[in-house]
Amino acid sequence: MIKYSKSDIEAMDRLTRLTLVNSLTGYKPANLVGTISNSGHTNLAIISSVVHLGSDPALLAFIMRPLVGERHTMENILETSYFTINHINRDMAEKAHYTSADFPREVSEFEKCKLSPSFLDGFKAPFVAESHIKIGLSFVETLEIKRNGTIMVIGQVEYVYMDEAYFDQKSGLDLNKAGTICISGLDSYHEVEKWATFPYARVSELPEF
Amino acid sequence: MIKYSKSDIEAMDRLTRLTLVNSLTGYKPANLVGTISNSGHTNLAIISSVVHLGSDPALLAFIMRPLVGERHTMENILETSYFTINHINRDMAEKAHYTSADFPREVSEFEKCKLSPSFLDGFKAPFVAESHIKIGLSFVETLEIKRNGTIMVIGQVEYVYMDEAYFDQKSGLDLNKAGTICISGLDSYHEVEKWATFPYARVSELPEF
Repeated sequence: MIKYSKSDIEAMDRLTRLTLVNSLTGYKPANLVGTISNSGHTNLAIISSVVHLGSDPALLAFIMRPLVGERHTMENILETSYFTINHINRDMAEKAHYTSADFPREVSEFEKCKLSPSFLDGFKAPFVAESHIKIGLSFVETLEIKRNGTIMVIGQVEYVYMDEAYFDQKSGLDLNKAGTICISGLDSYHEVEKWATFPYARVSELPEF
Repeated sequence: MIKYSKSDIEAMDRLTRLTLVNSLTGYKPANLVGTISNSGHTNLAIISSVVHLGSDPALLAFIMRPLVGERHTMENILETSYFTINHINRDMAEKAHYTSADFPREVSEFEKCKLSPSFLDGFKAPFVAESHIKIGLSFVETLEIKRNGTIMVIGQVEYVYMDEAYFDQKSGLDLNKAGTICISGLDSYHEVEKWATFPYARVSELPEF
Protein backbone atom coordinates (compact mmCIF):
# COMPACT_ATOMS: atom_id res chain seq x y z
CA MET A 1 0.00 0.00 0.00
CA ILE A 2 1.28 3.45 -0.84
CA LYS A 3 0.34 6.70 0.83
CA TYR A 4 0.11 10.18 -0.59
CA SER A 5 -0.12 13.02 1.89
CA LYS A 6 -1.45 16.51 1.22
CA SER A 7 2.10 17.77 0.69
CA ASP A 8 2.89 14.87 -1.69
CA ILE A 9 -0.17 15.82 -3.74
CA GLU A 10 0.73 19.51 -3.72
CA ALA A 11 4.23 18.62 -4.92
CA MET A 12 3.03 16.58 -7.92
CA ASP A 13 3.25 18.06 -11.39
CA ARG A 14 -0.05 19.63 -12.40
CA LEU A 15 -1.23 16.88 -14.76
CA THR A 16 -0.48 14.01 -12.37
CA ARG A 17 -2.32 15.84 -9.60
CA LEU A 18 -5.29 16.53 -11.90
CA THR A 19 -5.61 12.91 -12.98
CA LEU A 20 -5.23 11.59 -9.43
CA VAL A 21 -7.66 13.96 -7.71
CA ASN A 22 -10.20 13.77 -10.54
CA SER A 23 -10.41 10.01 -10.05
CA LEU A 24 -10.58 9.99 -6.23
CA THR A 25 -14.36 10.20 -5.98
CA GLY A 26 -14.94 6.97 -7.93
CA TYR A 27 -17.14 6.64 -11.02
CA LYS A 28 -18.84 9.81 -12.19
CA PRO A 29 -22.07 10.24 -14.16
CA ALA A 30 -21.65 11.24 -17.82
CA ASN A 31 -23.97 14.10 -18.78
CA LEU A 32 -24.22 16.92 -21.29
CA VAL A 33 -25.58 20.25 -20.06
CA GLY A 34 -27.43 22.15 -22.79
CA THR A 35 -28.08 25.91 -22.72
CA ILE A 36 -28.88 28.82 -25.01
CA SER A 37 -28.07 32.52 -24.77
CA ASN A 38 -30.75 35.20 -25.07
CA SER A 39 -29.33 35.97 -28.51
CA GLY A 40 -29.92 32.36 -29.59
CA HIS A 41 -26.44 30.76 -29.39
CA THR A 42 -26.69 27.18 -28.15
CA ASN A 43 -24.03 25.62 -25.94
CA LEU A 44 -23.23 22.11 -24.84
CA ALA A 45 -20.80 21.06 -22.08
CA ILE A 46 -19.82 17.63 -20.79
CA ILE A 47 -20.19 17.63 -17.01
CA SER A 48 -19.20 14.76 -14.70
CA SER A 49 -20.32 16.37 -11.44
CA VAL A 50 -24.12 16.15 -11.58
CA VAL A 51 -25.46 15.24 -8.16
CA HIS A 52 -28.89 14.54 -6.61
CA LEU A 53 -29.97 17.02 -3.93
CA GLY A 54 -33.48 15.85 -3.19
CA SER A 55 -36.62 14.31 -4.65
CA ASP A 56 -39.46 16.52 -3.36
CA PRO A 57 -38.89 19.07 -4.76
CA ALA A 58 -36.79 17.30 -7.39
CA LEU A 59 -33.47 19.14 -7.25
CA LEU A 60 -30.23 18.35 -9.09
CA ALA A 61 -26.96 20.28 -9.10
CA PHE A 62 -23.57 20.34 -10.79
CA ILE A 63 -20.20 21.94 -10.10
CA MET A 64 -18.75 24.55 -12.39
CA ARG A 65 -15.39 26.25 -12.55
CA PRO A 66 -16.19 29.93 -13.08
CA LEU A 67 -13.35 31.03 -15.33
CA VAL A 68 -12.79 28.24 -17.82
CA GLY A 69 -14.53 26.94 -20.95
CA GLU A 70 -17.78 26.06 -19.29
CA ARG A 71 -18.39 29.69 -18.36
CA HIS A 72 -20.65 29.98 -21.42
CA THR A 73 -22.95 27.48 -19.76
CA MET A 74 -23.08 29.62 -16.62
CA GLU A 75 -23.66 32.83 -18.56
CA ASN A 76 -26.51 31.23 -20.50
CA ILE A 77 -28.18 29.85 -17.38
CA LEU A 78 -28.03 33.25 -15.69
CA GLU A 79 -29.49 34.87 -18.84
CA THR A 80 -32.35 32.46 -19.48
CA SER A 81 -32.89 30.61 -16.15
CA TYR A 82 -33.12 27.22 -17.90
CA PHE A 83 -30.80 24.32 -18.74
CA THR A 84 -30.98 20.66 -19.70
CA ILE A 85 -29.13 17.57 -18.47
CA ASN A 86 -28.81 14.76 -21.02
CA HIS A 87 -27.41 11.29 -20.28
CA ILE A 88 -24.48 10.26 -22.46
CA ASN A 89 -24.66 6.83 -24.08
CA ARG A 90 -21.93 4.90 -25.87
CA ASP A 91 -22.99 5.92 -29.38
CA MET A 92 -22.52 9.60 -28.64
CA ALA A 93 -19.62 9.44 -26.15
CA GLU A 94 -16.81 10.60 -28.42
CA LYS A 95 -18.83 13.57 -29.67
CA ALA A 96 -19.81 14.42 -26.11
CA HIS A 97 -16.15 14.29 -25.02
CA TYR A 98 -15.12 16.88 -27.59
CA THR A 99 -17.61 19.45 -26.31
CA SER A 100 -14.90 20.10 -23.70
CA ALA A 101 -12.70 21.81 -26.30
CA ASP A 102 -12.46 25.55 -25.77
CA PHE A 103 -14.86 26.79 -28.46
CA PRO A 104 -15.73 30.51 -28.59
CA ARG A 105 -19.19 31.43 -27.29
CA GLU A 106 -20.64 32.16 -30.74
CA VAL A 107 -19.69 28.65 -31.93
CA SER A 108 -22.14 25.92 -30.94
CA GLU A 109 -20.75 22.63 -29.67
CA PHE A 110 -23.91 21.06 -31.11
CA GLU A 111 -22.74 21.94 -34.61
CA LYS A 112 -19.01 21.31 -34.13
CA CYS A 113 -19.51 17.96 -32.41
CA LYS A 114 -22.36 16.81 -34.68
CA LEU A 115 -25.00 16.53 -31.99
CA SER A 116 -28.59 17.65 -32.60
CA PRO A 117 -30.36 20.32 -30.54
CA SER A 118 -33.94 19.41 -29.79
CA PHE A 119 -36.46 21.99 -28.57
CA LEU A 120 -39.33 20.17 -26.88
CA ASP A 121 -42.68 21.63 -25.85
CA GLY A 122 -41.39 25.19 -26.03
CA PHE A 123 -38.77 24.59 -23.30
CA LYS A 124 -36.24 27.41 -23.55
CA ALA A 125 -33.01 25.33 -23.33
CA PRO A 126 -32.00 22.77 -25.98
CA PHE A 127 -32.09 19.02 -25.28
CA VAL A 128 -29.69 16.62 -27.02
CA ALA A 129 -31.67 14.52 -29.50
CA GLU A 130 -29.18 11.63 -29.36
CA SER A 131 -29.53 11.25 -25.58
CA HIS A 132 -31.95 8.62 -24.30
CA ILE A 133 -32.74 10.36 -21.01
CA LYS A 134 -33.29 14.12 -21.19
CA ILE A 135 -34.05 16.39 -18.24
CA GLY A 136 -35.22 20.01 -18.42
CA LEU A 137 -34.50 22.17 -15.36
CA SER A 138 -35.24 25.67 -14.12
CA PHE A 139 -32.41 27.51 -12.39
CA VAL A 140 -32.81 27.78 -8.60
CA GLU A 141 -29.59 29.32 -7.27
CA THR A 142 -25.80 29.16 -7.24
CA LEU A 143 -23.65 28.51 -4.17
CA GLU A 144 -20.00 29.54 -4.21
CA ILE A 145 -17.35 27.30 -2.67
CA LYS A 146 -15.08 29.97 -1.25
CA ARG A 147 -11.98 27.81 -0.85
CA ASN A 148 -11.46 27.50 -4.60
CA GLY A 149 -14.04 29.73 -6.29
CA THR A 150 -16.03 26.89 -7.88
CA ILE A 151 -19.80 27.23 -8.08
CA MET A 152 -22.60 24.77 -7.43
CA VAL A 153 -25.46 25.36 -9.86
CA ILE A 154 -28.83 24.13 -8.56
CA GLY A 155 -31.86 23.39 -10.73
CA GLN A 156 -35.37 22.05 -10.25
CA VAL A 157 -36.59 19.30 -12.58
CA GLU A 158 -39.32 20.62 -14.91
CA TYR A 159 -39.46 17.79 -17.47
CA VAL A 160 -38.07 14.29 -17.96
CA TYR A 161 -38.18 12.70 -21.42
CA MET A 162 -37.32 9.06 -22.01
CA ASP A 163 -38.40 5.84 -23.61
CA GLU A 164 -41.10 4.28 -21.45
CA ALA A 165 -39.14 1.01 -21.36
CA TYR A 166 -36.39 2.65 -19.28
CA PHE A 167 -38.59 3.40 -16.27
CA ASP A 168 -39.50 0.80 -13.69
CA GLN A 169 -41.75 2.17 -10.93
CA LYS A 170 -40.07 -0.03 -8.33
CA SER A 171 -36.41 0.55 -9.09
CA GLY A 172 -36.27 3.79 -11.06
CA LEU A 173 -34.51 4.27 -14.37
CA ASP A 174 -32.88 1.23 -15.93
CA LEU A 175 -29.65 2.94 -16.91
CA ASN A 176 -28.21 -0.27 -18.39
CA LYS A 177 -31.14 -0.48 -20.79
CA ALA A 178 -30.80 3.22 -21.62
CA GLY A 179 -27.12 2.69 -22.45
CA THR A 180 -25.96 5.40 -20.03
CA ILE A 181 -22.20 5.28 -19.42
CA CYS A 182 -19.95 6.69 -16.71
CA ILE A 183 -16.60 8.46 -16.49
CA SER A 184 -13.49 8.12 -14.39
CA GLY A 185 -10.77 10.72 -14.13
CA LEU A 186 -10.65 13.13 -17.04
CA ASP A 187 -10.83 10.92 -20.09
CA SER A 188 -11.92 7.34 -19.37
CA TYR A 189 -15.38 6.10 -20.37
CA HIS A 190 -16.94 2.99 -18.94
CA GLU A 191 -19.77 0.63 -19.66
CA VAL A 192 -21.79 -0.56 -16.72
CA GLU A 193 -23.60 -3.74 -15.85
CA LYS A 194 -26.02 -4.22 -12.99
CA TRP A 195 -24.84 -6.86 -10.63
CA ALA A 196 -26.97 -6.72 -7.48
CA THR A 197 -30.00 -5.12 -5.89
CA PHE A 198 -30.28 -5.13 -2.11
CA PRO A 199 -33.49 -4.56 -0.11
CA TYR A 200 -34.25 -1.44 1.88
CA ALA A 201 -31.97 -1.66 4.93
CA ARG A 202 -33.69 -2.11 8.29
CA VAL A 203 -31.90 -2.57 11.62
CA SER A 204 -34.22 -5.49 12.39
CA GLU A 205 -33.56 -7.30 9.11
CA LEU A 206 -29.79 -7.52 8.78
CA PRO A 207 -28.59 -10.52 6.78
CA GLU A 208 -25.96 -12.97 8.06
CA PHE A 209 -22.83 -11.42 6.57
CA MET B 1 -41.03 8.68 -25.68
CA ILE B 2 -42.85 9.58 -22.49
CA LYS B 3 -42.72 12.88 -20.65
CA TYR B 4 -43.01 13.59 -16.95
CA SER B 5 -43.59 17.21 -15.99
CA LYS B 6 -42.89 18.77 -12.60
CA SER B 7 -46.54 18.32 -11.62
CA ASP B 8 -46.52 14.67 -12.77
CA ILE B 9 -43.49 14.07 -10.52
CA GLU B 10 -45.09 15.88 -7.59
CA ALA B 11 -48.23 13.75 -8.00
CA MET B 12 -46.33 10.42 -7.89
CA ASP B 13 -46.50 8.32 -4.75
CA ARG B 14 -43.46 8.96 -2.57
CA LEU B 15 -41.55 5.77 -3.40
CA THR B 16 -41.98 6.05 -7.17
CA ARG B 17 -40.82 9.66 -7.01
CA LEU B 18 -37.81 8.71 -4.86
CA THR B 19 -36.69 5.95 -7.22
CA LEU B 20 -37.18 8.09 -10.32
CA VAL B 21 -35.44 11.24 -9.08
CA ASN B 22 -32.63 9.30 -7.40
CA SER B 23 -31.76 7.72 -10.73
CA LEU B 24 -31.97 10.89 -12.87
CA THR B 25 -28.34 11.94 -12.44
CA GLY B 26 -26.96 8.71 -13.95
CA TYR B 27 -24.45 6.41 -12.27
CA LYS B 28 -23.26 7.47 -8.84
CA PRO B 29 -19.99 6.70 -7.05
CA ALA B 30 -20.22 4.14 -4.22
CA ASN B 31 -18.41 5.31 -1.10
CA LEU B 32 -18.44 4.79 2.65
CA VAL B 33 -17.88 7.84 4.84
CA GLY B 34 -16.14 6.96 8.11
CA THR B 35 -16.23 9.16 11.23
CA ILE B 36 -15.77 8.99 15.00
CA SER B 37 -17.28 11.01 17.84
CA ASN B 38 -15.15 12.71 20.47
CA SER B 39 -16.32 10.02 22.88
CA GLY B 40 -14.95 7.31 20.57
CA HIS B 41 -18.06 5.95 18.80
CA THR B 42 -17.27 5.11 15.18
CA ASN B 43 -19.81 5.59 12.39
CA LEU B 44 -20.03 4.47 8.80
CA ALA B 45 -22.49 5.72 6.15
CA ILE B 46 -22.93 4.75 2.51
CA ILE B 47 -22.94 7.93 0.43
CA SER B 48 -23.60 8.11 -3.32
CA SER B 49 -23.15 11.87 -3.70
CA VAL B 50 -19.39 12.35 -3.41
CA VAL B 51 -18.25 14.95 -5.94
CA HIS B 52 -14.93 16.49 -7.03
CA LEU B 53 -14.61 20.23 -6.38
CA GLY B 54 -11.04 20.90 -7.40
CA SER B 55 -7.55 19.47 -7.53
CA ASP B 56 -5.32 22.26 -6.13
CA PRO B 57 -6.23 22.34 -3.31
CA ALA B 58 -7.66 18.82 -3.53
CA LEU B 59 -11.28 19.30 -2.43
CA LEU B 60 -14.10 16.74 -2.37
CA ALA B 61 -17.66 17.15 -1.11
CA PHE B 62 -20.81 15.15 -0.47
CA ILE B 63 -24.46 15.93 0.12
CA MET B 64 -26.14 15.16 3.41
CA ARG B 65 -29.74 15.31 4.55
CA PRO B 66 -29.60 17.01 7.95
CA LEU B 67 -32.34 15.21 9.84
CA VAL B 68 -32.12 11.54 8.86
CA GLY B 69 -29.86 8.60 9.72
CA GLU B 70 -26.67 10.12 8.41
CA ARG B 71 -26.85 12.95 10.93
CA HIS B 72 -24.40 11.01 13.12
CA THR B 73 -21.83 11.47 10.37
CA MET B 74 -22.43 15.22 10.37
CA GLU B 75 -22.28 15.45 14.17
CA ASN B 76 -19.00 13.54 14.23
CA ILE B 77 -17.44 15.70 11.51
CA LEU B 78 -18.40 18.86 13.37
CA GLU B 79 -16.96 17.42 16.60
CA THR B 80 -13.64 16.15 15.27
CA SER B 81 -13.10 18.00 11.92
CA TYR B 82 -12.06 14.80 10.15
CA PHE B 83 -13.69 12.11 7.99
CA THR B 84 -12.71 9.39 5.54
CA ILE B 85 -14.06 8.41 2.11
CA ASN B 86 -13.57 4.74 1.20
CA HIS B 87 -14.35 3.22 -2.22
CA ILE B 88 -16.80 0.33 -2.16
CA ASN B 89 -15.81 -2.80 -4.07
CA ARG B 90 -17.92 -5.81 -4.94
CA ASP B 91 -16.73 -7.98 -2.02
CA MET B 92 -17.96 -5.48 0.56
CA ALA B 93 -21.01 -4.06 -1.27
CA GLU B 94 -23.75 -5.86 0.66
CA LYS B 95 -22.21 -4.92 4.02
CA ALA B 96 -21.79 -1.35 2.83
CA HIS B 97 -25.44 -1.21 1.73
CA TYR B 98 -26.69 -2.13 5.19
CA THR B 99 -24.87 0.76 6.85
CA SER B 100 -27.91 2.76 5.65
CA ALA B 101 -30.12 1.10 8.27
CA ASP B 102 -31.11 3.50 11.05
CA PHE B 103 -28.74 2.41 13.82
CA PRO B 104 -28.58 4.45 17.04
CA ARG B 105 -25.50 6.66 17.44
CA GLU B 106 -23.88 4.48 20.12
CA VAL B 107 -24.02 1.47 17.79
CA SER B 108 -21.21 1.29 15.23
CA GLU B 109 -22.07 0.31 11.66
CA PHE B 110 -18.53 -1.13 11.50
CA GLU B 111 -19.49 -3.75 14.06
CA LYS B 112 -23.05 -4.41 12.90
CA CYS B 113 -22.11 -4.70 9.22
CA LYS B 114 -18.87 -6.63 9.85
CA LEU B 115 -16.52 -4.07 8.38
CA SER B 116 -13.16 -3.29 10.00
CA PRO B 117 -12.15 0.17 11.25
CA SER B 118 -8.56 0.99 10.43
CA PHE B 119 -6.69 3.85 12.13
CA LEU B 120 -3.73 4.82 9.99
CA ASP B 121 -0.84 7.09 10.96
CA GLY B 122 -2.77 8.60 13.85
CA PHE B 123 -5.48 10.02 11.57
CA LYS B 124 -8.48 10.85 13.77
CA ALA B 125 -11.25 9.30 11.62
CA PRO B 126 -11.48 5.55 10.87
CA PHE B 127 -10.75 4.14 7.41
CA VAL B 128 -12.45 0.96 6.16
CA ALA B 129 -9.86 -1.82 6.01
CA GLU B 130 -11.78 -3.72 3.29
CA SER B 131 -11.74 -0.75 0.93
CA HIS B 132 -9.00 -0.65 -1.72
CA ILE B 133 -8.90 3.14 -2.03
CA LYS B 134 -9.05 5.12 1.21
CA ILE B 135 -9.05 8.90 1.51
CA GLY B 136 -8.59 10.92 4.71
CA LEU B 137 -10.01 14.44 4.70
CA SER B 138 -10.08 17.48 6.98
CA PHE B 139 -13.38 19.36 7.23
CA VAL B 140 -13.43 22.69 5.39
CA GLU B 141 -17.00 24.00 5.57
CA THR B 142 -20.67 23.21 5.04
CA LEU B 143 -22.95 24.97 2.57
CA GLU B 144 -26.71 24.81 3.06
CA ILE B 145 -29.03 24.36 0.09
CA LYS B 146 -31.90 26.53 1.25
CA ARG B 147 -34.55 25.13 -1.05
CA ASN B 148 -34.61 21.76 0.73
CA GLY B 149 -32.36 22.06 3.77
CA THR B 150 -29.70 19.62 2.51
CA ILE B 151 -26.08 20.35 3.29
CA MET B 152 -22.93 20.09 1.19
CA VAL B 153 -20.00 18.95 3.34
CA ILE B 154 -16.61 20.01 1.95
CA GLY B 155 -13.30 18.41 2.85
CA GLN B 156 -9.67 18.73 1.85
CA VAL B 157 -7.71 15.59 1.02
CA GLU B 158 -5.06 14.91 3.67
CA TYR B 159 -4.11 11.31 2.78
CA VAL B 160 -4.75 8.78 0.02
CA TYR B 161 -3.98 5.09 0.67
CA MET B 162 -4.07 2.49 -2.08
CA ASP B 163 -2.23 -0.34 -3.73
CA GLU B 164 0.46 1.12 -5.95
CA ALA B 165 -0.83 -0.91 -8.91
CA TYR B 166 -4.03 1.16 -9.00
CA PHE B 167 -2.34 4.45 -9.84
CA ASP B 168 -1.21 5.35 -13.32
CA GLN B 169 0.42 8.77 -13.49
CA LYS B 170 -1.04 9.42 -16.93
CA SER B 171 -4.65 8.42 -16.41
CA GLY B 172 -5.22 8.49 -12.65
CA LEU B 173 -6.70 5.70 -10.58
CA ASP B 174 -7.53 2.47 -12.39
CA LEU B 175 -10.91 1.95 -10.76
CA ASN B 176 -11.56 -1.25 -12.72
CA LYS B 177 -8.41 -2.76 -11.25
CA ALA B 178 -9.37 -1.56 -7.76
CA GLY B 179 -12.78 -3.21 -8.13
CA THR B 180 -14.67 0.01 -7.37
CA ILE B 181 -18.38 -0.27 -8.18
CA CYS B 182 -21.13 2.28 -8.78
CA ILE B 183 -24.76 2.78 -7.79
CA SER B 184 -27.95 3.73 -9.56
CA GLY B 185 -31.13 4.82 -7.83
CA LEU B 186 -31.41 3.68 -4.25
CA ASP B 187 -30.50 0.02 -4.34
CA SER B 188 -28.81 -1.07 -7.58
CA TYR B 189 -25.10 -1.91 -7.67
CA HIS B 190 -23.14 -2.09 -10.88
CA GLU B 191 -19.85 -3.40 -12.14
CA VAL B 192 -17.96 -1.23 -14.54
CA GLU B 193 -15.66 -1.89 -17.47
CA LYS B 194 -13.51 0.68 -19.20
CA TRP B 195 -14.38 0.97 -22.83
CA ALA B 196 -12.65 4.05 -24.25
CA THR B 197 -10.16 6.80 -23.52
CA PHE B 198 -10.27 9.94 -25.60
CA PRO B 199 -7.46 12.51 -25.93
CA TYR B 200 -7.52 15.98 -24.39
CA ALA B 201 -10.03 17.93 -26.51
CA ARG B 202 -8.61 20.78 -28.58
CA VAL B 203 -10.61 22.93 -31.01
CA SER B 204 -7.86 22.45 -33.62
CA GLU B 205 -7.83 18.66 -33.32
CA LEU B 206 -11.44 17.56 -33.72
CA PRO B 207 -11.82 14.07 -35.20
CA GLU B 208 -14.07 13.30 -38.19
CA PHE B 209 -17.26 12.32 -36.40
